[in-house]
Parts: sequence; C-alpha cells; structure tokens
Amino acid sequence: MTTKKWVYVFNEVAQAEKDAGGSWEGVRALLGGKGAGLADMTRAGVPVPPGFTVTTEACNAYYASGNKFPEGMWDQELAALKKVEEQTGKKFGDPANPLFVSCRSGAKFSMPGMMDTVLNIGLNDVTAQGMIKLTNDERFVYDAYRRLIQGFGSVVLGIPDEAFEDELEAYKNSKGAKLDTDLDANDWKILTEKFKAIVKKHKGFDFPQDPKEQLRLATEAVFQSWNGKRAVDYRNAAGIAHDLGTAVNIVTMVFGNMGWTSGTGVAFTRDPATGEKKMYGDYLLNAQGEDVVAGIRNTEKIEKLAEEMPEAYKEFLDICAKLEHHYKEMQDVEFTIENGKLWMLQTRNGKRTAKAAVKIAVDMANEGLITKEEAVLRVTPENVDTLLHPQFDEKAKKEAKSEGRLYAKGVNASPGAAVGQVYFDADTAEKMAKENHQDVIMVRPFTKPDDVHGMLAAKGILTSEGGATSHAAVVARQFGVPCVVGAASIRINLDKLIMEVNGKVVKEGEWISVDGTTGEVYLGKIPTTSPDLEKQVDLLTLLKWADEICATPGIRNGKNGMPSTGLQVWTNADYPKDARRARSFGAVGIGLCRTEHMFFEPERLPIVQRMILAETSEQRTAALNELLPYQRADFAGLFEAMDGYPVIIRLIDPPLHEFMPSEEALLEEVITMKVKGETKGLAEKESLLASIRAMHESNPMMGLRGVRLSIYMPEIVEMQVRAIFEAAADMTLKGIVVKPEVMIPLTGTVKELEWIQPRLERIAKTVMDEKKVQFSYKFGTMIEIPRAAVTAGEIAKIAEFFSFGTNDLTQMTFGYSRDDAERNFLVKYIAEGILPKNPFQTIDREGVGRLMQMCIQEGRKTRPTLEVGICGEHGGDPNSIEFCHIAGNNYVSCSPFRVPIARLAAAHAALKHKGVAIAEDK
Amino acid sequence: MTTKKWVYVFNEVAQAEKDAGGSWEGVRALLGGKGAGLADMTRAGVPVPPGFTVTTEACNAYYASGNKFPEGMWDQELAALKKVEEQTGKKFGDPANPLFVSCRSGAKFSMPGMMDTVLNIGLNDVTAQGMIKLTNDERFVYDAYRRLIQGFGSVVLGIPDEAFEDELEAYKNSKGAKLDTDLDANDWKILTEKFKAIVKKHKGFDFPQDPKEQLRLATEAVFQSWNGKRAVDYRNAAGIAHDLGTAVNIVTMVFGNMGWTSGTGVAFTRDPATGEKKMYGDYLLNAQGEDVVAGIRNTEKIEKLAEEMPEAYKEFLDICAKLEHHYKEMQDVEFTIENGKLWMLQTRNGKRTAKAAVKIAVDMANEGLITKEEAVLRVTPENVDTLLHPQFDEKAKKEAKSEGRLYAKGVNASPGAAVGQVYFDADTAEKMAKENHQDVIMVRPFTKPDDVHGMLAAKGILTSEGGATSHAAVVARQFGVPCVVGAASIRINLDKLIMEVNGKVVKEGEWISVDGTTGEVYLGKIPTTSPDLEKQVDLLTLLKWADEICATPGIRNGKNGMPSTGLQVWTNADYPKDARRARSFGAVGIGLCRTEHMFFEPERLPIVQRMILAETSEQRTAALNELLPYQRADFAGLFEAMDGYPVIIRLIDPPLHEFMPSEEALLEEVITMKVKGETKGLAEKESLLASIRAMHESNPMMGLRGVRLSIYMPEIVEMQVRAIFEAAADMTLKGIVVKPEVMIPLTGTVKELEWIQPRLERIAKTVMDEKKVQFSYKFGTMIEIPRAAVTAGEIAKIAEFFSFGTNDLTQMTFGYSRDDAERNFLVKYIAEGILPKNPFQTIDREGVGRLMQMCIQEGRKTRPTLEVGICGEHGGDPNSIEFCHIAGNNYVSCSPFRVPIARLAAAHAALKHKGVAIAEDK
Repeated sequence: MTTKKWVYVFNEVAQAEKDAGGSWEGVRALLGGKGAGLADMTRAGVPVPPGFTVTTEACNAYYASGNKFPEGMWDQELAALKKVEEQTGKKFGDPANPLFVSCRSGAKFSMPGMMDTVLNIGLNDVTAQGMIKLTNDERFVYDAYRRLIQGFGSVVLGIPDEAFEDELEAYKNSKGAKLDTDLDANDWKILTEKFKAIVKKHKGFDFPQDPKEQLRLATEAVFQSWNGKRAVDYRNAAGIAHDLGTAVNIVTMVFGNMGWTSGTGVAFTRDPATGEKKMYGDYLLNAQGEDVVAGIRNTEKIEKLAEEMPEAYKEFLDICAKLEHHYKEMQDVEFTIENGKLWMLQTRNGKRTAKAAVKIAVDMANEGLITKEEAVLRVTPENVDTLLHPQFDEKAKKEAKSEGRLYAKGVNASPGAAVGQVYFDADTAEKMAKENHQDVIMVRPFTKPDDVHGMLAAKGILTSEGGATSHAAVVARQFGVPCVVGAASIRINLDKLIMEVNGKVVKEGEWISVDGTTGEVYLGKIPTTSPDLEKQVDLLTLLKWADEICATPGIRNGKNGMPSTGLQVWTNADYPKDARRARSFGAVGIGLCRTEHMFFEPERLPIVQRMILAETSEQRTAALNELLPYQRADFAGLFEAMDGYPVIIRLIDPPLHEFMPSEEALLEEVITMKVKGETKGLAEKESLLASIRAMHESNPMMGLRGVRLSIYMPEIVEMQVRAIFEAAADMTLKGIVVKPEVMIPLTGTVKELEWIQPRLERIAKTVMDEKKVQFSYKFGTMIEIPRAAVTAGEIAKIAEFFSFGTNDLTQMTFGYSRDDAERNFLVKYIAEGILPKNPFQTIDREGVGRLMQMCIQEGRKTRPTLEVGICGEHGGDPNSIEFCHIAGNNYVSCSPFRVPIARLAAAHAALKHKGVAIAEDK
Repeated sequence: MTTKKWVYVFNEVAQAEKDAGGSWEGVRALLGGKGAGLADMTRAGVPVPPGFTVTTEACNAYYASGNKFPEGMWDQELAALKKVEEQTGKKFGDPANPLFVSCRSGAKFSMPGMMDTVLNIGLNDVTAQGMIKLTNDERFVYDAYRRLIQGFGSVVLGIPDEAFEDELEAYKNSKGAKLDTDLDANDWKILTEKFKAIVKKHKGFDFPQDPKEQLRLATEAVFQSWNGKRAVDYRNAAGIAHDLGTAVNIVTMVFGNMGWTSGTGVAFTRDPATGEKKMYGDYLLNAQGEDVVAGIRNTEKIEKLAEEMPEAYKEFLDICAKLEHHYKEMQDVEFTIENGKLWMLQTRNGKRTAKAAVKIAVDMANEGLITKEEAVLRVTPENVDTLLHPQFDEKAKKEAKSEGRLYAKGVNASPGAAVGQVYFDADTAEKMAKENHQDVIMVRPFTKPDDVHGMLAAKGILTSEGGATSHAAVVARQFGVPCVVGAASIRINLDKLIMEVNGKVVKEGEWISVDGTTGEVYLGKIPTTSPDLEKQVDLLTLLKWADEICATPGIRNGKNGMPSTGLQVWTNADYPKDARRARSFGAVGIGLCRTEHMFFEPERLPIVQRMILAETSEQRTAALNELLPYQRADFAGLFEAMDGYPVIIRLIDPPLHEFMPSEEALLEEVITMKVKGETKGLAEKESLLASIRAMHESNPMMGLRGVRLSIYMPEIVEMQVRAIFEAAADMTLKGIVVKPEVMIPLTGTVKELEWIQPRLERIAKTVMDEKKVQFSYKFGTMIEIPRAAVTAGEIAKIAEFFSFGTNDLTQMTFGYSRDDAERNFLVKYIAEGILPKNPFQTIDREGVGRLMQMCIQEGRKTRPTLEVGICGEHGGDPNSIEFCHIAGNNYVSCSPFRVPIARLAAAHAALKHKGVAIAEDK
C-alpha cells in the first residue's frame, strides 16, 4: 500500500485537482483556501514564493489518531522542503545561503487571525550569522530572529505573548525609544538573548536551534490551533463545520522589512466598505505583514505606492485585475516587496460590508462578469439585514454636534448605528450583554482574536488604533456590527476603566453612540431612524432580480397542486403604518394581523375588561358594540394600505386573563387590606380577584384560547367578523380592492371549524347584503396544533387556507413552553449540541418541519388550490424560508423590516432548489 | 315501480330474510328484535299469536318525509290485518267475533320500556258489547276497555298518565278498595266513562271509536316514540345509533286477565343475576303483562306455575329450551296463558348482571353450546369492571347490624355496593351527581323510563316496589349500578322528601349504603373492600381463555418486526403492594413505576426539598445520599413482587416546584408578616419564596421536567439509577429474577438520550461490577412528546423500548392542558360533538393514534425488536386497547384494578382483528 499524499508543492496544483475529484471546491477543501490560492496563483504565473501545503486531511488524520502525524506525512514535508530548496537555490539551515519559511494555517473557509502563523522558521544562531553576512544588515536579522523566538514562543510553545511584549516595552522605555524603528541592531541582538531567556524560563529548555525541529513543532502548532478556543468560537459564530480541519502552508520567507526598498501590504480589489471599483488597502515600507494587519503602526494608503514604487505598483495592479477576473470575485490579497521585487502571498475572496456586497454583486452583473442569478446568490440575507439596520437620525446628530457631544472621529470600518454602554474588555462586554441584557459598546485600543466573543455580543465596537483592514474592522464587517477603528484621539486606560479625549472622561457603563457609517463617536444616546430603502438603489435592483427569480414559473416542480413559482413575501402587520412600511419594502400581502393587540390600547382595555366580566349577555353585547367601531376603523386602515393585496386577519387568540390585571398584585392588595382591617373597596377587589382566579389556568398556552375561546364565547369573534366585513364593504364602496381572509387560530380538529365557520360566514354574508356590495373573501385557519397538521386532510375540507403558526407549533411539537425554556434548559441544550439551533428561531426540519410537510401534502390532496403560508417568527429566517420553499408554501409572512431579507432568501431557495420536486413525505 | 314492502306478516320470515340480504342480523335490523323474534318463533312452530311487523325502514321513511307514512305502508298494514283476521278467524271491529291487537315498538337493539306500547286496540263501545256477549265477563271487558283508553290516551294522545291514575285512585278510595281486583264490573264500566271524559277534557275530541283509526294513530305513536326524550337518552347511554329506527309489531291480543285460568309472565332461561342454569321469572294470574313488568302487583315466582298449571308450564319449559338452543344464548321471554292456552309473546337475548354474563358464557362453552372464543366475546370489559367493583366489608356490615343500622331488605336486583346521599327524583339525583359531584342513591317507589337519566347518574338505586324483572332492576343490571328493588317495608313520601321504616326517617341528602348483592339497605356509610378475584372461578376461567387467545402466534400478522401474538397486559404500580395485587390480577410486567411518588412521602419530602434548594454540589449530593437507601428499598420490593417479570422504572418526571410548598400560601404569609411588622423568620421565608418564584413556570407542563430536568441536574437520576441497580443486584443475589428497564421520560430528540443514557448506563455497569453480579436490563424512553413520535426512527437508535405516555401525548398533540380543559371547553366540546369522546379517556385515533402508528412503524424500521407499550390512562380503556392491538403494541399497562378488564379487551381486539395485518401508515 502506498502512503497517502499528505503534502503538495505549490506547482502540483494539477495533481491536487485530480486527487480532489476534479473540482476547485475539492481543492479548497483539501489544501485550504490559502493553499489553493497560492497554488492557483503559481499556476497562473503570478509571482508567489515557492512553498508547499500540508493537507486538511493530514490535520484530520492527526486528530483521528490521537494527535499524531499520519504515517509518511513528515517525510513528505521534508521531501517538499527539498523541492523548495531547489526552486529557491537556498538551503534550510545552511548559513551559506539559508532558506527561511513561514508556517501558516489555512482552512477551507477564511478565519482571519483565528489560527496561528509562525514566521522566519529556519533562523538560529548559525543561520543568523550567515544571513548577516549575506545582507550586511545585522539590525534586520536580529529583528527577524527575535520575531521568530517571540512568535514561536507564544504560538508553538504557549508562552503568553505579554511576556515578550512587556520585555520589549521595558527595554524601549529604558532606551527612551518610542517606536520599534528607534531601536538599532544591538538593541535587537540584546532582545534576542532576552527572548531566549524567556523561553528557557517558561519552558525549562532552550529555544530549539534545529530548523527542522522548528518546522515540525510549527506544523503541529497549526494543527492544534484548529481546535483552539478562539477558532472554535469563531466557527460557532460563523457557522463553519468543525470537521473540516486546517491545512498548513510552508512558504519561503520574503522580507518586507529588508530596508526601505522593501515593504508589505494588504489590499482589496474593490472598496470592501462601499463596493466602489477601486483598489483599497494599506502598506508599510520596511515592515513585515503582521505589522500591517495588527494595526500597530500607522499604514499608508495603497494608492501612495504608485508614487513610491511605480513599477511594482503597476505589476501589482495587473495581477489584481487578472485575479479578479479569474475568480469572478473581489479579491483580498497580501503582498510583499523584497528589495523591489513583488511577491504575492495570498489571494482570497474579500470580506466586505453588506453595502459593498450588494454594490459589487450588482456591478459585476452589469459588467457582465457574473449573471443576475449569481449576483443574487452573492448577497446574503444577513447582508440585507445589515443594510436595514437603523441609522442615526441626521437632525439629532446635528443637535448633538452643536451641544459639543461629538467625541471623536475614526475610520468608518463597519457601517450602522450603535448606542450602548461602554465596556473595556471582551469578557465583561459579553457578560453585560448576555446576562444583564444591556446594549454594549466594546472599546479597546485594538482587538485580537481572543476578543471575538465580546465583539459578537456587542452592539458596536470602537478602537483607538488600527486601520480599515485591522482585526477589529474585518470581524465587525463580517458580522455586521457597527465599528469605528483608529479613533486616535482617544486615550484608553484599561486599569481605571475609562477613556479620555481632551479631558472628557467616559467611564465604564456610560452611554455612547458609535456611527460606523461615518466614523463618528458621540457622547450619550442619539436616536436612530429606520433606513430608507428607496435610496438604496443597488439593493432595490438586486431585490427586483430576486423577485423575478421567484416569479419564474417552473422554478419549482409544482406537481399535485404545489406552486410552480417561488415564494411570495407577505408581512405581519397589526396597524396601517406597519402595513404601509412593509408594502414599501415589497410585501405583497398581510399574512397576519393580530386583532388582540388592538384590544390592549389604553382607551379600549377598560371596555374589553367590562366585556370579559359581563354577567349578562346584554352587558357583554353592550361592551362589544362599543368595541366594534374601533375594530372596524383598524381594519379599514389596513385594507386601504394594502389596496389590491390579500389581508389575513386573525380572530382573537390569547386567553382572556391576559386582558385582566395581575392576579398576584391584586392578591397582595387584598391581603394587605385584610391584615390592616381596611374594608373600603375590599369587596370589589375580592370579587375581581375571584373572577381572575376563576380564569386562572395551569398551562395557559394550552388553555382556553384561539378557536376554543371563540366556541366558548362566540360573541367576540362575531363582533370581529362584523367589523372586518363592514370595513371591507366601506372600502370597496370607496374604490379600494379588498381581499379579506379571516383566520381562525388554534384549530385542532375540523369539527371546530365546522362549528364556528358557518356562523361567521353567515355574518359576512349579512353584512354584504346590508351594504349591498360584493367582494371575494376566504376563511381559513392557522396550523399550530400538532393534531391540525396530522389531520390536515380533514381540515382542508373546510379551511380555504392554512397559515403555519410555527411559534406555537414548535412549542407543542417539542412540548417546550417558550417563555420558560429559553431561560433554563434551552440554553444548555443549544450549548451542549442537543439542539443544533434554537427551534424558535429556525424551523426544526426533522420534527416540526416533517409535520408541516405532511400537513401541506395532505391538505392539498383534499384541496389542490389550498393557499399555504407561514406567519410565525420563522417567516423572516432564511433557513426556515428555504424550508418553506421546499415544503411547498405559497408565501412566507414576516415583520416589515425583514421583508427584503425574506425576498432575497426566497430567491436563494428558488435558485438552490431550481426545478426540484417539492419533497414528498417519507 | 312496485311499492316497497313495508309490512311483513309473522309467517313471511323467509321473505324477510331474502329481502334483508340473507343474514339474520339483517332481519333483526329490518323487523326489529321483537318482530324478528316473533317471526322466527312462528317459523319454529312456537305458539305465537298471529300478527305482523311494520319495518324499521318504514319508520325511517316516516321521519325522512317529514312525519308521513311512506306510500303504500298503510294499505299494506290493512292487508296484513286481513291475513291476521284469516289466521284467527276473528274480525277487527266486528262485535260478533272481534279481533283485538296490541301495537308494540321493537328496535334492532332492545330498549326495555323506552318506547311505547298500546294494548287492546280494536275495543270500542260496540266491540266491547260483542266481547261481553262472547266472554260473559263484563268485568274483564270494561277493565280492558279502560286500559285501552288509558294507554291510548297517554301514549298516543299525550295525556299525562297521572290524569287517569289519579282518577282511578280517587275512585278506589271512594269505594274503600285497596287493589284493582277489589273493583267489580260496574266499577270498571263507570271508570271507562270517566276515562273517556278525561280524553274529551284534555283533547277536545272523543276517544276514537274507529278501530282502524286507533291502529293508525298507535302505529304513528310508536314511530314517534323512537325520538322521544327518554329513548334518545337511553340510546346515548347505551351507545345505540340514532338512525336505526323502530319497527312496529301488531299482535293479536291474548288475554292473561281472562280469569284465573289465564295469566301472564316474563322469564329468563337462566338466572340473570347469578347465571345459574334454571328458569327465573315472575308471573301473575288474571293479569296483563304490564302488571308484571311495572311491578305494581306482587308477582309469583315462575316455579310456582308448575303447581298451578303443570301442562302449560311443561310446554313452556320445552319451548324455552328450544329457544336457548336455537339462539345459543340465554333468552328473556314473555308469555301469556289465555284460558289455559300458552302463547309466547316475545323472545330475546336476556340482559344479565356481569356475574351472570361470565357464568353463562363459561357454562355454555363447557356445555359445548358455544366455543371458548365466543364465550370470551360474550363478556364485555364493562362486565369485568363491574365484577371488580368494591363490595361492602363483611365485618363492617356485621357491626352495622349490631348497631341496628340495617334499615330494610329487598330484592338483590343488581349486585355491588353503593354508598351515597339519598335523592327522591331523577332530576335532583342527576343534578347533585353531575354539578355537585355527590355520590347519590336514587330512591323511588318504582322507576319508569323517564327516570333513566337519574339512575345513570346514581351510585345506587333503591325502590320500595317491583320485582327482579321490574324496570329499575333491568336498567340497573344493564348499566352495572347496584340496585335493591321491592324493599316493601320502606314508605316513601315524595312530598316531604323523606322515607320511613318503623318511624326511622331518612331525609333527602342523608347517607345510606345499598348492597345490591344481598338486597340489604343500611343507614349511614359502610366501608367497602376490593373484590377477591381468586374466588371468582368463572371469571378466572374466562380470563385464562382470553390470555390463551392473546398468546396465540399468528393472531396478528406480525410483519416488519411487529408482534404476531396479541397484547400482553402489564400494570402501573409504584409500590410492592400494588405490584402484588396486579400480579394476582394477571399482570405480567410493570409498565410504569413512578419514582417521584416515593419522593412525596412525609419522611422523605424534607430531604427532597433540601436537595432542591442546595446551593453547593456537596449539599445536593448529601441530600441525594440520604434518599438513595429509600429508593433502593422501594425498588427491591418491586423486583421481589414481580420476580421473573419486567419492571419498567421511570426516572423523575415532574418539575421540581411540585415538591415545594405553595407559592401563594407563602406569599400570603410573607405579606401578612410584613404588614404586621413581624420580623422573626421573615428573611428565611422571603428567601424560600424567592427560590420558589425562581422555579415558577408559565406552562409547567411544557417546562423543566422529564429528561430536561435530568440533563439540567443529572445528580438526581444518577442516584435513581444507582438505587435501581443496587436493588436489582441485591435481589439477584437473593435468587430473584430481575428484569429492570429504565425509562427516560419526555424525550423529544434522540440527542437527549445520547447525552444522558451513556452516563446512566455507566452507573449501571459500575454497580454490577461493584456487586459482582450480572443481569440483563434495558434503557428506553417514554413517547409523550409529538416530536418523539415523529422522529421515532432516530430515537429507536438509542432507546431499546418505547412506552407511550398517552396522557401527555394527548395534551401536546391537541394542545390541551388537561387540568384546565376538563373544567372549561372540553365539556362543551364533547357536548357539542366537536370531540366524539374525551380524548383523555379514549385514544383519539385520527390524531394521537396516527402519531403512535408512525412512531411504532418507524421505530421498528430502525429496531425490529423494539418493545412497545402504553402506560397512560388509556392503557385500561377497551377502545384504546383495541387501537394498541391494531397499531402493533407488545403490551398495555394499566392500573392494577383494570388488569382483568384489559386482558379481556386485549382478547376481544385479537379476535376482532384476527390475522389482520397491523395497519400501515397512510
């Protein structure tokens, strides 16, 4: 048996492609994104320093065998090293012409800064001397050597980085030096020895002088970093699978810090913040890459390189254009110039803001680089969500400025408005956000991968250092958290937990407002406004394309009465203003109007309570007659706002006790009065308490509500149906096209509908007769009780439409009381992986989803034209929308702000499952 | 088109059989039970008075056409009458030789006394004179005539019977007469005229003199009586369909009241109370049938007829033997002797007590008359239930006697012990039972069909008049209500609502104890004891046969891993004493031991509370260590009791707050202390209140319980599993064969089992290692969450057995909180027919049942040997047991007292669905 191939030299890309089954996706999985990119660039003739890649399979084999290199891997690594020696003419460990390499992680999906890199491997006391002879630059060599010891020490040997940084800081202080560049060759030589001593002190052994030992340990450290806490956290947050493994890239070192004709930089082929078609990036002369990325030194804008190194810059631009065309995607590249010679160190699809994602996709489609379908797939629903995040109210900002509350300005690294309380470290920020439910702004001089958990929990991020490609900026953009970086005027004191600008101090817990769109930071809270979708031209274009995709007949295989076009997007709206907003966001119907919200309004609640407590039928009717005009006006407004579109109105759903005062408060009052011997009003209170107690239910969620309440006390829904049809008739007479659909909640058996629906339809017909007007309407039901899903074939005999109430359906199917579960076991269940996701956010396809599929199939068997929608909170969740597409829904209904997201998600689902038959039940 | 045949003369039975499709069942449906019996007897050569039957189809056609006789029916009736005239040589309305007929209802299923009968049709002023000439018995003729007017007046014309009875009573008083027999011919003649005046007064027209008019109206009255309130009530109670209709039987009158060589009687071919093989019945000389049935005159025992009319009695015995052999069932016959000539007026399968049902079935099987399978089918699960009803404690009865509390003795008409409060009319009895949830004894001089609703609501029935075949006795036996009739010493005053025996007065609402087994009535309450199954030899035989049927391989078509034998019956038992009782009742396993019941015992609850409130892991462990020995002892007892049989122990299920004091009571205490300014102990109480409040859940039924609690706080179940396996090991070492099965409740996803089960199994193995003993065991789960049923294929990968918790499964599938629903909408739902039955009593096959079927099929697809049971309350419900058989369960588990019932129901299911494949999912 021949040993598996664990290692690929960069120019073995054709072999890798073959071994990976011929797909580029496979190569990326095998070599990781970075390795695949380097190999691919090598093939394309782009100048890439020679190197090789240890595969992700090797990493997985390493873990599978209990943290041991798989058989043959190390030998293959040494063989590949030999080839690199041949390609470069240098030799690893040879002082005469030493080869140095970097050792870099590279998983299939980019996880910036999450895993480890070691530079300058191959340096030791001997090769250092050789190098000094070759370069005549002792300062450079000792700087490089101490960087190796520091990087190796922290990454490979696990010594805290602070040990080295503190030593360096102390040394600089002792020398009165401010910047690293203030130190000379001798300083770095001394520091090299000091760093060696740190290693010895922490580990008890000397820094390894054998270059191969360095390489072996570094390789293993990269493998290890795949399962490091911050990498696992990142993958959890980004939804990346944990079993992919990381590749290890061994790349010949090129030095950007070999004097002032050397340099290094990172750049995007288009602006990752706005999407504008121009190079965007930073570089530093005489520096190594980490200096740029960490944001420690202030970088230069990439355009300036045209002046400083015109030739190298021209070559760089050409290469970038070639790469973008090759990958049909905006690229994020790293490069180093060593003594005037340009080397490309990495290319990958660039991360971008939501705004840039949309603009780049639309532009590229317009440029003919990609199709409209590809453009639609390039933008994620989360991108759209970000674009619809609130922005600061312009007027309020102006006022704040005039009041002197503009605190600082920095780089607008990730757009959006964030208002929150300041915390200065990731742990506290996370704790305050999760446990105390505070809105948090995380403030740091700069961020490191260890800080990600705090950044994800924060509403906004602010750093005093770093640029647009710094760690903080990249992470914030990716997760859509508003972020300002490099606000240099701010002095942060991590000990005192304060920050200061010109004597203006902000303490931990105080409120600030961060504008990631403009880079401004304000003191106190500034009100936010909803974004104006109509001004977001690119997004509108993209959503139009999305709608066109969904409207394509045949995009679904619509057999057995299933729809053949994609999903429509409707909205959940209780008030005309919500309906109007949703319509402007592209909703083409109301999937859920909750009538009971109207009952809670202050002037109505007392009437509602009177109705509930009525002792005679006359009293009840009188109260309901008072409510009728209110409800009629509510519905009229909705019909007007949705002129021409269907409006589904759900009859009263919650149990009546929800409209009553709290039992416990009243009990407390009554006991107190009794103990004190007060009698005035006691009898009334006791009687009210008795009434409320009579309504008490052990499990109200499964109690007297929905259609049960309607059958128990039909007068309320009779009033509601009269109000709906009076309003619809009045609007019809005004020329509005109304399409009312009356929705009966909580149905569990068709007999409930058989009991109530004819009574209500009689009222509908009576009203139309009274008003002498005709319009079409539907009666239908929510499907939120498991039994309704199971007996849908029967229910569809009466109901003309189904709407999944997935909140309740999830509660009943799991037997989880949402209120209770989310504050106790559900948290542990998700943390322990017992549930892959919170089923109240994303439809549980195996359980709840299976019931939904049964329901749709059997409902349509009875009534092929059955209209099926979803109006639970899942209607705005992309994963759940995909499921609704597969299951055969006609539409999803979600909150107004999620309508654009849902439109995009619906198009994604349609494209992903193009022409696929809607799933049959097992 | 020829007219449909609506009328069959008795000797047209062959034609009827042909028209009904050849089955005797069809003849019974067409002619009703009475009509079919009369026709069948006619064919068999039994002396039956000539007559004919108007079919049930005619009755249904009458209702379908809006209460009109169907076309041709009346003409056919007149033609049939002509035939009867030919057969008898008499003529309807002819004074020279007048024919008289009775008009009797007769539905497919016997509904004794529920519908109407009119006797002596054909009598009028003219034929009465003719009859007097023929019989020379003016007294008899006027008595008959007044009976016609009274019966026709009340039944056909709707005049209250009291109008006639009061007149008769007043007349008797005026004459100083006590009994009807004290009146002479002239008295009856006067009463005849008085009765005619009553008709005229109430209706405004004269009693109809035209015999055909009498017949027509009587026929229609019988049709009408099918939908009379009492008939409808009866059908609802007895589960008889409302669309069967009644036939009308027109039978030549034979007169048992034609002097002292005439008589009439009713009899059973075996004793309907005990099942003993001997004639059992009553007769009266010189009387009409109604006198016997109503229990107004005191009857003679049937045996006495052998002395009084030996020839007729011998013929009667021969006929009875023939009939029993013909029908292979105990018969209930009516006969009349007219001037020494025996006529059989009716035969039908006789109603009987549960005890008699068992004895007769077993006897007949032993006699070779029926098979064992038929014998098993002859006895209903309700019969068995009745036999296991409590009996009075013998010692307590003796004491009561010695205290002088034996109040009266009557006929032991329906066995069983009843203790309740006395009410003297049906409406009050029903109200007190249903609304006030009282135990009620209904006391009446005698009962009539109008009283049935009160009798059904009562725990027991007591009458001062009537015999073993009186209305009260028949109804009570059928519904298994303990009953004593004819307790002649009791004087009931319906005005004062009291009864009296020798001055001892019992008022309405006072407690008495009625022993239907002995006929005794006691003052006050007498304690009851459970019946001793081992002494019920016939029942044991029958249940043995039932078990044999279930154990027959191939009785189910057991493909795909489904069982091929019938259901086993296991029991739900928490304590050894329950387990022992259940085992003596035939249980072959424990399907559910609820461990938490053990937690509630007084000496343990404080430890449990300490465990719950523990602030440190050490405190919790300490409390659990205290509980361990208790639980171990519990389980050891169970294993010992069930030696050789499986014992399923469910781990802790309820939410922890169920073990804590009431929140509301504590709140009241705290507020009271605060208002009063008391501080001593306040802090502790406040802290306890805070702890309890933290545990509060909005919907505890869907909250932190079952496996969720085990994952949230594994220490409790770890202790329980240790206790189970320590106990099992100890018992094994003692020579007991243990088969522990650990049941995890409330599973919703297989991941829950993947998390908890290995942890627990580790403990099981540890204990076996510690104790150096091996025994087989299983880990499995309850299926009570809809999602578990839907994902059973996954769950069966881990679980080795399933047990349906149909209480919770019904709650979640319907979304009904049982506690709440049963006191509000569920009542209305059942009343309105929205639910056919209470789904908490009988499995809802369409919804819950469908999930169960999916679950079993998919579970067995994964694990063909999967053991499936049910441990919800449905496990003791015969209809649900049938469903479990169909669905493919291995066993049902129910409370100990229902084990024998379940054994019989399981056999019924097996026989009913013999060899049928277990239903596949749609």
